[in-house]
Amino acid sequence: MTDTKTLKIGLFGFGTVGQGVWKVLRSARNAHAEIRRICVRNISKPRATVVPDGMLTDRAEDIFDDPEINLIVELVDDADASFRIVSTALSRGIPVVSGSKAMIARHLPELIELQRKHDTALLYDASSCGSIPVIRNLEEYYDNDLLLEVKGILNGSSNYILSRVFDHGEDYESALRRAQELGFAESDPSFDIDGFDALFKLIIITVHALGRFVPAEEIFTCGISHIDDCDIRYAREKNRKIKLVAQVVKTEPDAFTMFVMPELVEPSRYIYSVDDEYNGVVIRGECYDRQFMFGKGAGGLPTASSILSDIMARRHDYRYEYKKMEYVNRPHYTTDVTVRVYIRYNRTPIPQLLIFSTIHEQLLTPGHKYIIGDVNLSELIANRDIFNAPDVFIANIPIFFRDKDN
Amino acid sequence: MTDTKTLKIGLFGFGTVGQGVWKVLRSARNAHAEIRRICVRNISKPRATVVPDGMLTDRAEDIFDDPEINLIVELVDDADASFRIVSTALSRGIPVVSGSKAMIARHLPELIELQRKHDTALLYDASSCGSIPVIRNLEEYYDNDLLLEVKGILNGSSNYILSRVFDHGEDYESALRRAQELGFAESDPSFDIDGFDALFKLIIITVHALGRFVPAEEIFTCGISHIDDCDIRYAREKNRKIKLVAQVVKTEPDAFTMFVMPELVEPSRYIYSVDDEYNGVVIRGECYDRQFMFGKGAGGLPTASSILSDIMARRHDYRYEYKKMEYVNRPHYTTDVTVRVYIRYNRTPIPQLLIFSTIHEQLLTPGHKYIIGDVNLSELIANRDIFNAPDVFIANIPIFFRDKDN
Repeated sequence: MTDTKTLKIGLFGFGTVGQGVWKVLRSARNAHAEIRRICVRNISKPRATVVPDGMLTDRAEDIFDDPEINLIVELVDDADASFRIVSTALSRGIPVVSGSKAMIARHLPELIELQRKHDTALLYDASSCGSIPVIRNLEEYYDNDLLLEVKGILNGSSNYILSRVFDHGEDYESALRRAQELGFAESDPSFDIDGFDALFKLIIITVHALGRFVPAEEIFTCGISHIDDCDIRYAREKNRKIKLVAQVVKTEPDAFTMFVMPELVEPSRYIYSVDDEYNGVVIRGECYDRQFMFGKGAGGLPTASSILSDIMARRHDYRYEYKKMEYVNRPHYTTDVTVRVYIRYNRTPIPQLLIFSTIHEQLLTPGHKYIIGDVNLSELIANRDIFNAPDVFIANIPIFFRDKDN
Repeated sequence: MTDTKTLKIGLFGFGTVGQGVWKVLRSARNAHAEIRRICVRNISKPRATVVPDGMLTDRAEDIFDDPEINLIVELVDDADASFRIVSTALSRGIPVVSGSKAMIARHLPELIELQRKHDTALLYDASSCGSIPVIRNLEEYYDNDLLLEVKGILNGSSNYILSRVFDHGEDYESALRRAQELGFAESDPSFDIDGFDALFKLIIITVHALGRFVPAEEIFTCGISHIDDCDIRYAREKNRKIKLVAQVVKTEPDAFTMFVMPELVEPSRYIYSVDDEYNGVVIRGECYDRQFMFGKGAGGLPTASSILSDIMARRHDYRYEYKKMEYVNRPHYTTDVTVRVYIRYNRTPIPQLLIFSTIHEQLLTPGHKYIIGDVNLSELIANRDIFNAPDVFIANIPIFFRDKDN
């Protein structure tokens, strides 16, 4: 019944994940896949993993021009280089497995067009949530229009940091350092802690959840780097944890919204218990209610095992069909929705800068000022520069699906 | 990119799940699938769902002989009838989506052979864990030999009952009655509470997890119907919950074991928090460590939404490839493994009937006798009749993967 072939892989990038893929392919005795050549920027850089002589090259052509290579695995930590590699490969009809979420989130429409035009495939399940098969399940299993919401903790390193701060009483700086030492944080930590990593994953997820691509610029994104002791105290007093949460939500039958923001999470929610470097995603739909998927979202080996799943899928010529992009009555993206937020500030005069439809709570003390109010998401986007001020911290207080628990 | 077709469905069975499928297909505007005919045993039986005149029939031929019908959905609550319908359909080359776990678990090797011979497909993701896509993910995403363990709460109604007893202080009988009223329990409740439902799901899962089919008779299976107040008190004292757990575990690189048994679950475990009618499955592997999937495992609509996923997969001619059955070095099934168990008894002289390699704890009071000891699984299987005695209750105390938390 199986129609299988041996995959000969050209690998771009040999960092943590690339070396993880090398290791995972050696453990998986039935993979029928082998790495033929590895292209790196610097051949002579010392690496923990020893590979046979001649395996490494710094010339991309050694991979593109090798007629034996029938799959390219792209794990390069530079979005521009990554796009060049992937688009070259697809243009030559070579299928690609990629883990470069920033590049994919930025170029997805072009990459879909390239796949179509050259009748080839790009898989990137590893790009979202490390080892959790979110993309594949949204594409294949939730292949219907019953989906209402995808919401979760998509960034392992910011979650690790918040976990250290919240559950272990560490300070923010030392938690960040520890995340970097453990290899959870990207080389540029702002990518993780300012919410961009989660944003890019959310953009990719939304294409496979609702068939809509929304550019990064149009999405409200705020991270955790301005978090302060008083925010942590506030959350603790209310018996909540602060987590960095990304979500896409159908707000009406024909509209959806999406954003990335810290959230004050109640203990009854599934994501409350997602600690350390783990990721967790809640998928909610009509009829099936809520599903929760949970797994390691950061680290070389979990991501490598996800790359392996994409590699194995190519043995059977699997590709994403982007079915939901062809749906009739696809919902449209809106930012004209009310969100409830906690905003802590000091010098920045928040109540004068933002229009709240309702103010639920306000505290003004010399050391700690905050406001809890309902505000239109488009108002937050129009005034997003406010949240660059280091004295301002915003967190979402969820009001969608409030009637249902979790 | 999409190569789609309209599915014309012949539906067998119009109970809770069948009517759920009817409803779900109406909500899913982009399903491109319609029910053409419904075959039931008794046309004139009153039903909550009204269907157009002529939609119902009691003649299977009206479906088999309709050349327009290109998919059969089989939801019949009788394993023999279900096998006749599915094997007839496959023999005629008509693909089938089925939710009949008992039938599938019993006949899977024949059903695989029928699919092969007639080049057609049988999908049954709904048969395991209601709305959680376990089979599909084991088959496609965990398509490698890194898998170490699949363990979980696979039966929603026994979990609902234990949840009522444990978390709400209800007595067993009234909890069972309530589960039946809510439509969680099968028509024959022993199917749920004696562990057979979980067993059948486990058998199906094992085929897709490790590529091995193990007949039901060879697997130790014990349910919750003998649970007693003193077991509940014991578990509470030890800060544990009793859950009905099914598991398949690689015990060595080339061997695995499997069983269904109540378990004394510690709070740190993922499955500890799986309450009410929910199911939860932990998938553990080399490299990716643990993944946890969680969702509604019982009830008409969650199961129907899973049937819908299988129906949609047929639009793209998806089939299970049973890839792992072709793996080299497939692990073999063994029952020669040590398990640690709590056995509570009264008249039945457990210490004289079973050989324990180690006894860890023993209590002998007039009202409450129990023993905690290590015993070979094959010893339990050889003496399985013991556990039919109403004064005996057995629960597993997990020792596999003890070094790792959760």
